[in-house]
Amino acid sequence: MNEQRILANDVGKHLNSRICLEGWVHRIRDFGKIQFVLLRDRSGVVQLVYNDSSQTFAQESVIRVWGTVVSNERSPSGIEIHVDNTEILGVSYEPVPVNPAQSAESYSLELLLDQRISSLRHPMVRSIFELESVIIDAFGSFLRSNGFTEIKTSKLIGTGTEGGTGLFSVSYFDEVVYLAQSPQFYKQAMVASGLERVFEIGPAYRAEKHETSRHLNEYISLDVEMAFIQDEHDLMDLETQLLQHIISTVAERCAPALDMWNVTVPDSEALSKIPRCTYAEAKKLLKKRTKKVVFDIDPEAERELCLWAQEEHNVPAVFVYEFPIRKRPFYTYPKEKYSRSFDLLYGGVEITTGGQRIHDTTMLKESISVNGLSESSLRDYVKIFSYGCPPHGGFAIGLERLAQKILRLKNVKEASAFPRDRKRTRP
Amino acid sequence: MNEQRILANDVGKHLNSRICLEGWVHRIRDFGKIQFVLLRDRSGVVQLVYNDSSQTFAQESVIRVWGTVVSNERSPSGIEIHVDNTEILGVSYEPVPVNPAQSAESYSLELLLDQRISSLRHPMVRSIFELESVIIDAFGSFLRSNGFTEIKTSKLIGTGTEGGTGLFSVSYFDEVVYLAQSPQFYKQAMVASGLERVFEIGPAYRAEKHETSRHLNEYISLDVEMAFIQDEHDLMDLETQLLQHIISTVAERCAPALDMWNVTVPDSEALSKIPRCTYAEAKKLLKKRTKKVVFDIDPEAERELCLWAQEEHNVPAVFVYEFPIRKRPFYTYPKEKYSRSFDLLYGGVEITTGGQRIHDTTMLKESISVNGLSESSLRDYVKIFSYGCPPHGGFAIGLERLAQKILRLKNVKEASAFPRDRKRTRP
Repeated sequence: MNEQRILANDVGKHLNSRICLEGWVHRIRDFGKIQFVLLRDRSGVVQLVYNDSSQTFAQESVIRVWGTVVSNERSPSGIEIHVDNTEILGVSYEPVPVNPAQSAESYSLELLLDQRISSLRHPMVRSIFELESVIIDAFGSFLRSNGFTEIKTSKLIGTGTEGGTGLFSVSYFDEVVYLAQSPQFYKQAMVASGLERVFEIGPAYRAEKHETSRHLNEYISLDVEMAFIQDEHDLMDLETQLLQHIISTVAERCAPALDMWNVTVPDSEALSKIPRCTYAEAKKLLKKRTKKVVFDIDPEAERELCLWAQEEHNVPAVFVYEFPIRKRPFYTYPKEKYSRSFDLLYGGVEITTGGQRIHDTTMLKESISVNGLSESSLRDYVKIFSYGCPPHGGFAIGLERLAQKILRLKNVKEASAFPRDRKRTRP
Repeated sequence: MNEQRILANDVGKHLNSRICLEGWVHRIRDFGKIQFVLLRDRSGVVQLVYNDSSQTFAQESVIRVWGTVVSNERSPSGIEIHVDNTEILGVSYEPVPVNPAQSAESYSLELLLDQRISSLRHPMVRSIFELESVIIDAFGSFLRSNGFTEIKTSKLIGTGTEGGTGLFSVSYFDEVVYLAQSPQFYKQAMVASGLERVFEIGPAYRAEKHETSRHLNEYISLDVEMAFIQDEHDLMDLETQLLQHIISTVAERCAPALDMWNVTVPDSEALSKIPRCTYAEAKKLLKKRTKKVVFDIDPEAERELCLWAQEEHNVPAVFVYEFPIRKRPFYTYPKEKYSRSFDLLYGGVEITTGGQRIHDTTMLKESISVNGLSESSLRDYVKIFSYGCPPHGGFAIGLERLAQKILRLKNVKEASAFPRDRKRTRP
């Protein structure tokens, strides 16, 4: 490793010194006797000045340069490097189909995804993944400091959590298994094991043939499960604080990404007061606002409810709870014909589903039977509770959807480095 | 949530006060007029005293109790709770096949895994996963503080990183894809994108029919990739510091797990000086120690090299580097007939494989051809370098193997909450 290397964003600390920089050739402007080269590294971009035209590198080549840091008002950052030595570390053999020095908005989503190896070099595209790294970190840090243990559970399962539909099958030696839609059963098993509070960050799979701006067939699920709750309000309390922590960490550490995408994040104080509507109240509210009959909380209704929350509560988010029990999975804790479950809508889209789970075996067996499911295929699951299990519940946040909503990306696929959809299995 | 609840390990702070506790009934000793009950929660175990025999709960039931904290020298922790009120939160309907209050060593590995829902309740078993949570945290924290970005890449790939063998196939709509053996290509793409330093924590899959104490078909790979390296020594430097940080964090935060498993971790100072042997030197060393002809560094040789390191360097770990190029994947950076690659052996087992990668397209195409691979099936991969890529390399640590070695578990499967092997696909 080159211990002398200075990052682009730190050159200001070395005015009038001779320094070493390493990075990608972001842009070349050639005026014959003088060449201006923008050098890009993980921290930012800095201008290099060559007083000859002998440079042979192409755009996106990777170089190491030595030069003197000079103040110059006309340079983009007020500082430039007068280069006296250049070494080519990585030759660029082929022009990039997506130019990192051009506006990302000049490329279609299809091109950005088809040419992913190239488009990931665009600072605006890259910033999405820098943001996701911060979200993951903030998610984990908050939960760890609240007594949660991070778990990693198998993604190869015998049957589906939600009943078996929408699963990708895997040839596993002489058996067929499925890719997990969620770590639901496993996080419950780990809660019941005595860990009490667990979280998992891992892939989740949905074999659904949707083609929308909010669906991915493979996504990262940020899962939380907690014991000794009273009801679903404990979970909404936890998620509110968690979201507040994530968003304030993003505000603190992702200023470049927020600037590039020209967005601001919601106020932390307002986020601490995300409103909660029951399903019935939400439907009433929608009817009043749209003057239409509301059968269900569909995507249009989700957008409308978030607009209402923004107008009335200065936050683009709202919890909808007490969903009808028939709309929720068999393991959901009932509350007469409703359930102790909720969704969190954020920026017009559901980013979380959660709720209290049934923790009593007798109640669970009844629900399995009412839902027409087979108890024998759920025998491992039933054991979790038969041995003794505390009241508990949890929720899951879709990482890419949250990033999409924070940066206001048009399509959730932009928030996946290598998205998988019905037609896309590469790169 | 019950805001008044006190954790078992904190009762000492509430001497002579009336408190509320919640947890699992770990053990019941009934002397007729007096009952001693051990209550287990996520923090530890505390003794409850009932002055009547009216309790109806079974072992592993989940209860909430109120009582007074009393000092008593004869109680296991010197403190006990005189209970005046008990509420059953979770009924235990069925006895546990693996008793959390008995020595875990009295159960066979098969039983511990077959009865996983029960065995996870054993504090010794649970402590493995508490340790892994700390390893993951320490791994991420160290890398973040060194400028690394956490990435999440697709586990569904078109072809295998190592050539296509040992892959599980997935029915993906009308296509067949495979479960990734490693995020190798993707982490390189993210490095080349300009992130420079990335890490990923995610599942990896090997469809190998092995049945050993060190293999899993699904495991968690702790992956690291870094740009602007000089050679493989930069990577061994990084891994040494990373391992030092992980082990010292474990020493600090996992004392209960280390105590239960009756192990100590290597000295931090000694860890900072993990010896490095070339492959050729390692073979010579082995020949000298074993008086046998050494063809390869096989599992027996790995154990012997770690014994040597412990004896000579007071650390159970050794880097072996400069592996013959023919023993390494096509993307490995060559060093004449050797390569800029390494393994880290720890506690007698290879826990890491790493090395510098080829970053020049011309050199890469040559290696693809020499290895008899098809350039067209690697076209997305080749693009990473064609556009311009810095010198880089990385390594991967198997989470379960590292945990196995730290706690001296007999079998790596013990370190997986829900292990997958040739015959095991549930729970």
